[in-house]
Amino acid sequence: MQIGIIGGTGHEGRGIAARLAAAGLPVLIGSRDAGRARETVDRLHAASATLTIEGVSNDDVAARSDVVFLAVPFDGLDELLRAQGTRFRPGTLIIDLVVPLTFEGGVPGIADIPEGSATEFVRARVPAEVHVAAAFKTIPAAALGKLDTPLDCDEFVCGDSPASRERTIDLLGRIPSLRPLDAGGLASARAIERMTALAIVLNKRYKVRDARFRVVGV
Amino acid sequence: MQIGIIGGTGHEGRGIAARLAAAGLPVLIGSRDAGRARETVDRLHAASATLTIEGVSNDDVAARSDVVFLAVPFDGLDELLRAQGTRFRPGTLIIDLVVPLTFEGGVPGIADIPEGSATEFVRARVPAEVHVAAAFKTIPAAALGKLDTPLDCDEFVCGDSPASRERTIDLLGRIPSLRPLDAGGLASARAIERMTALAIVLNKRYKVRDARFRVVGV
Repeated sequence: MQIGIIGGTGHEGRGIAARLAAAGLPVLIGSRDAGRARETVDRLHAASATLTIEGVSNDDVAARSDVVFLAVPFDGLDELLRAQGTRFRPGTLIIDLVVPLTFEGGVPGIADIPEGSATEFVRARVPAEVHVAAAFKTIPAAALGKLDTPLDCDEFVCGDSPASRERTIDLLGRIPSLRPLDAGGLASARAIERMTALAIVLNKRYKVRDARFRVVGV
Repeated sequence: MQIGIIGGTGHEGRGIAARLAAAGLPVLIGSRDAGRARETVDRLHAASATLTIEGVSNDDVAARSDVVFLAVPFDGLDELLRAQGTRFRPGTLIIDLVVPLTFEGGVPGIADIPEGSATEFVRARVPAEVHVAAAFKTIPAAALGKLDTPLDCDEFVCGDSPASRERTIDLLGRIPSLRPLDAGGLASARAIERMTALAIVLNKRYKVRDARFRVVGV
């Protein structure tokens, strides 16, 4: 199973690449600029030489991956999907990480998206034979990046079908100390994306960097 | 400090009344029908005779309480606030529990509210000298009602001022096994209310009744 990360040179994308590669999965790190992707790979290799990672263009990620993580800012997502949309192979699973954060007067919020969430926005813009799920929205990049620190939290996975959720949950289950939870259909992304804004509020108030969630009673 | 609960005969209101009274606080249980409120008090007294609780009308709750919990369905909230609005004493702290749940094809969601959340809806409808906070939105009634079971989770408190949040956090801090967290201004209710819909999805998928949240890293 080839994993790829569109926007893999960003803080969040890099953290996921490292966590998945550390779990033994081959990961393509993508960037608009393949040179930058290769620099990120060099940096990750400096920390751990055994990771199976490769730096490529975002286009190559789309063309070569079975599972593609979308780790890009919401701004530019529409354009990226228009450009990339037809490149995804049929059967590709897109795992969307995008959180459409806004800051009004310093208060984090979520942009109003006609589809309801960034994940539903993605679903509306890729071919039907490409599958869409969401994950990693509530786990702070700061925590993802610290490979030697257990994540020690739950991850909310929603998807456009039971199969999409199952594939995502199987994949995330390979990361130690992370419990993926089946959070149902894509509409759950409306709650999950807002939880990221809430986590940022908590980070500020409690002067921490990696507030994240666990579900009690499940 | 007199605590009162508007809608205190419902599942959620009853649970909060029991938890606060068990913590030694005097609680007025309110209902449109004071007779029903007295029946609820009798039932709670049957379980624990030492609780300082009294069954009264919602009007009496508003007129006599320093802190009023709003535990009513979203439908009818507008009417209730119009009727009750001027009865709250200046300085009253309203703690809003309302979650404007919708179910479309069995999928739980949150009603579109122009103000952004039920709590902001409340804030827009009560006099300026009444303070507004939100709490207990994500704790299932099933868990609240089981007095002998620790809640063992966090509670997200947002409020219209630091003082409103502090008063609410002080109050909730008296309930053992519950950690109230300062979740900032009222806009955080947008995330918190949606987390209730998410908890219901999780309850369904995992066949449990009281999924609730804890924050890791704080």
